[in-house]
Amino acid sequence: MDHKILQTTRDLIEEVGYLDLTVDQVAARAGVGKATIYRRYASKAEMAFVANVHGQQLPPVADTGSLHGDLLALARTFYVLMAAPEARYLVPALISELAVNAELVTRFQDTYLAAEHAAFARIIERAVARGELAGPVNLAIAHLLLAGSLAAALYITNLPVDDAMVTDLAAAAAAGITALADQHHSDPDGAAEPR
Amino acid sequence: MDHKILQTTRDLIEEVGYLDLTVDQVAARAGVGKATIYRRYASKAEMAFVANVHGQQLPPVADTGSLHGDLLALARTFYVLMAAPEARYLVPALISELAVNAELVTRFQDTYLAAEHAAFARIIERAVARGELAGPVNLAIAHLLLAGSLAAALYITNLPVDDAMVTDLAAAAAAGITALADQHHSDPDGAAEPR
Repeated sequence: MDHKILQTTRDLIEEVGYLDLTVDQVAARAGVGKATIYRRYASKAEMAFVANVHGQQLPPVADTGSLHGDLLALARTFYVLMAAPEARYLVPALISELAVNAELVTRFQDTYLAAEHAAFARIIERAVARGELAGPVNLAIAHLLLAGSLAAALYITNLPVDDAMVTDLAAAAAAGITALADQHHSDPDGAAEPR
Repeated sequence: MDHKILQTTRDLIEEVGYLDLTVDQVAARAGVGKATIYRRYASKAEMAFVANVHGQQLPPVADTGSLHGDLLALARTFYVLMAAPEARYLVPALISELAVNAELVTRFQDTYLAAEHAAFARIIERAVARGELAGPVNLAIAHLLLAGSLAAALYITNLPVDDAMVTDLAAAAAAGITALADQHHSDPDGAAEPR
């Protein structure tokens, strides 16, 4: 069912374009009720986003042996997803809908954002286990430093993004996360976390 | 003229709301032609953004004596601008329009984004002059680390943002910018930049 809705959405976007796409068309072509679609997706924007951008799970996080390497691998994964032509027009539409649709915000946070945070959690846990980080850091902040800054580059500033920029953002995120871990885990007795 | 257009835009947004606002209404009430408006603003979204969010120059960048302090002061300035209720609905609308309006992208980059980059340039120049940074860094990347991540927090992830988060983002951006400066200015002969 999900598969059929999403495949029909992809087909119709190719045929009529995103702007002219309607949930009615998808329901009719896929042979399902509109209510069935709206139980799964808060809006046309979310349905198209899932169909074209974030439909699959994130690939497993590469274990490169360093915080910097893991973040660079993740940044390149995000870049491929986020810079794809469909993402370039679907994500901005989704952003404008998030501003006026609280239900979509909740669903977005509970699914796609939670999956992205989980990828950062994995990377940070490994770095703490290796002794590379003084302790865990806030996942939302780690995510914003890397994925947030990359999203801002692609969807807000609209400046050209190349692999050199992705590499610099990953290096800066690694340094930023390291600094926050040091700062938040350097209690006076110094005994809280092994270094 | 600009003032009148922008004041009328603010008045009408208060009266009818952003969604129902039209450029026609603003032109009629302000007593100017639509062409006059479109010479200044690419769209309703840009006009409303300038009227309510980015109409004034950024305040002068505080000179706190440290990179971290300057970035924190700037982050708090951005936060006040970007978290205002009007910005919360106007910026997402602007983002979705940037995706389909190349003229708006150019104007956005040449004005608001250039002004924001200039604020980072000032801060980075000072840090280089103090010997705190090994050399200048890419302004677009510095901007993305701080303003980009903050924009992503407010407009994309829509998670709560408080001063602790703003403070952490500024600390992380300072560490990231420092790491990039070290990396890009540590050429083998070591003579390129005074430390």
